[in-house]
Amino acid sequence: MVEKEISQAVIGRLPRYFRYLGELKDQGVERISSQELSELMQVTASQIRQDFNNFGGFGQQGYGYNVDLLYREISKILGLDKTHNLIIIGAGNLGQALGNYMNFERRGFILKGLFDKNETLIGKKVRGIPVRGMDEVEQFIRENNIDIAVLTIPKTSAVEVAEILVQNGIKAILNFAHVDLNVPKGIQVENVHLSDSLMKLSYNLERYNKETKK
Amino acid sequence: MVEKEISQAVIGRLPRYFRYLGELKDQGVERISSQELSELMQVTASQIRQDFNNFGGFGQQGYGYNVDLLYREISKILGLDKTHNLIIIGAGNLGQALGNYMNFERRGFILKGLFDKNETLIGKKVRGIPVRGMDEVEQFIRENNIDIAVLTIPKTSAVEVAEILVQNGIKAILNFAHVDLNVPKGIQVENVHLSDSLMKLSYNLERYNKETKK
Repeated sequence: MVEKEISQAVIGRLPRYFRYLGELKDQGVERISSQELSELMQVTASQIRQDFNNFGGFGQQGYGYNVDLLYREISKILGLDKTHNLIIIGAGNLGQALGNYMNFERRGFILKGLFDKNETLIGKKVRGIPVRGMDEVEQFIRENNIDIAVLTIPKTSAVEVAEILVQNGIKAILNFAHVDLNVPKGIQVENVHLSDSLMKLSYNLERYNKETKK
Repeated sequence: MVEKEISQAVIGRLPRYFRYLGELKDQGVERISSQELSELMQVTASQIRQDFNNFGGFGQQGYGYNVDLLYREISKILGLDKTHNLIIIGAGNLGQALGNYMNFERRGFILKGLFDKNETLIGKKVRGIPVRGMDEVEQFIRENNIDIAVLTIPKTSAVEVAEILVQNGIKAILNFAHVDLNVPKGIQVENVHLSDSLMKLSYNLERYNKETKK
């Protein structure tokens, strides 16, 4: 049982550990030293030990880490041993791409519904699930025990829609709209601002070009 | 002219400043104090001053920041005063969503081509640009001065495809494949791992639930 407060930086690294451990598990690897994991993941062994110490360590001196145990523990810490019901607001290309993304389902995020205000999209099916009109969303959230909403709508309506979602019981939002949402304390928001990633890339590209030209 | 090395944490925050300043500019705001910007963006005024000090400050005592000047300077730092030619590898739902995303174009990222190995997608148009077969990608990169590739293909082929792209002159990759790419030093990679964001959300959701139940 994890009770200690863990920094968001560590939390941000957990999914990557989880991914590597899952791949090792699939390859039949039973144990791995922090040194080997360090080389594989290109982070320092000391970083790995420090990160894992946040939730009890998992390592045995001279033995290394038990891959399966570590995988299951991180899974539990991330809450992936439970299922979460999820809806997607905005059934355009991005919403459909996410709806079709089976990896979510494998991790316990169950797509229950998609919503859009665009009449031409309503009724269209994504993995067998029909796109519904926005007028149905409030009742749907309340009746289907939905805790996560994925927002793939333009920024002009995102703030307003987020408020409605929260009022009806949504606890966490994965936000692709290029705007910061204004939600009450306790509502979890994770922003995926695609332009921001591209801008960061652009900066690093310019920076590198300048340095190599010196 | 920026010559100092700026930390990736600061760089990661620049797009958000850029977005807020762009909105202020659109609203006709000419100047803003670090205090006002702090309240608007929900970060401390000292953080803002510290961040801006990395590239010369921009502020005047008792006057605040000149919004337009600051906007243009950050734009220049991010390399947004230049254009970058971009291709998308993988023209499925996600690739098409990104291809249709006009915000990229507004920031100087010009979509030049989309590629897919799926025969049924080849020839399909996204914003007037036809999806081409993967056999054309190498020549296309060399002949069209492409520096950025967006990877929206499954992880099974992403590592191999990234190598081919880099061999033909790609300098930066926005990677949506759920795998770490193995690229030579100097090639810029920005990962957008959508499952990771969802897992982080899941952790914070669990954490909050536990805390409120105490």
